[in-house]
Amino acid sequence: MAAKPLAERTLCAVLDAMPVARLALKDLDDEPEALPIVFARAAGALWMPIDGKPKRSGASLGRLGRLERAPKVMLVLDHYAEDWADLWWIRLRCTAQIVFGKHPDWDAAIEALADKYPQYNDVPMFRDEPILVRYTWTGVSWWSATPEALHRWLEEFGR
Amino acid sequence: MAAKPLAERTLCAVLDAMPVARLALKDLDDEPEALPIVFARAAGALWMPIDGKPKRSGASLGRLGRLERAPKVMLVLDHYAEDWADLWWIRLRCTAQIVFGKHPDWDAAIEALADKYPQYNDVPMFRDEPILVRYTWTGVSWWSATPEALHRWLEEFGR
Repeated sequence: MAAKPLAERTLCAVLDAMPVARLALKDLDDEPEALPIVFARAAGALWMPIDGKPKRSGASLGRLGRLERAPKVMLVLDHYAEDWADLWWIRLRCTAQIVFGKHPDWDAAIEALADKYPQYNDVPMFRDEPILVRYTWTGVSWWSATPEALHRWLEEFGR
Repeated sequence: MAAKPLAERTLCAVLDAMPVARLALKDLDDEPEALPIVFARAAGALWMPIDGKPKRSGASLGRLGRLERAPKVMLVLDHYAEDWADLWWIRLRCTAQIVFGKHPDWDAAIEALADKYPQYNDVPMFRDEPILVRYTWTGVSWWSATPEALHRWLEEFGR
């Protein structure tokens, strides 16, 4: 199924509506690891803050180090449903970049995150110094169990 | 948060109740990739069928080849919620093994999958020849935003 390219418009609609993605990266032994992340789309990229959600001590810095060391990662967005006709996934092959406040797209990224996640009214968007991870995607693959699955999801959850 | 070990009983309850995990593995260029998978727990391992859900042609075999080539993988189970106090994840560092029908735990695995997924009444559990991937976990890490998050989820979704 779903061999044809995903329309850019559909991809962006999903990226804007889906609150969580799973990031596959390499650990320090070059073994694959996975993590759920929040992200927002702005200026043609995806942005992830190292935010103030409680974390295991050192976890945030460890993650940054692993991304800096091995920036080729994958993000998967998917929908699980009891009705397997509704299943779909989108995978983005990405390059990760650690970004500080002087990036030209910084303000747009912060605005997109604040807009997508009202939770940042209560949770600090940054833990210590302001750092974002910028993901640019270099390849998109996708699958849906039925031709309508992705669009049905967008009708229900799209913004 | 959550630096203390996860109780085996809690881990098993989550594994039995959570219908989807995300698998981080290595692609043929040794880059990380991620995929949502279904799985069931039996005989101290997790089992994933190469099932009859519609797939991109060749996708199943490609996945098996990549797992055989690089069997060290990670599974992440997590819960996203609008209330970030409810967030949690569990990550299992696993070794993947391709298994055919003669494995001593084969029947237990099939029974666990059929029990967890009534969808297999309609969708064939196997695409072509019967093959399962067996994941044994060698390490567990976990995080929860608040001490109650994981148990709250189990109260709502546990079986």
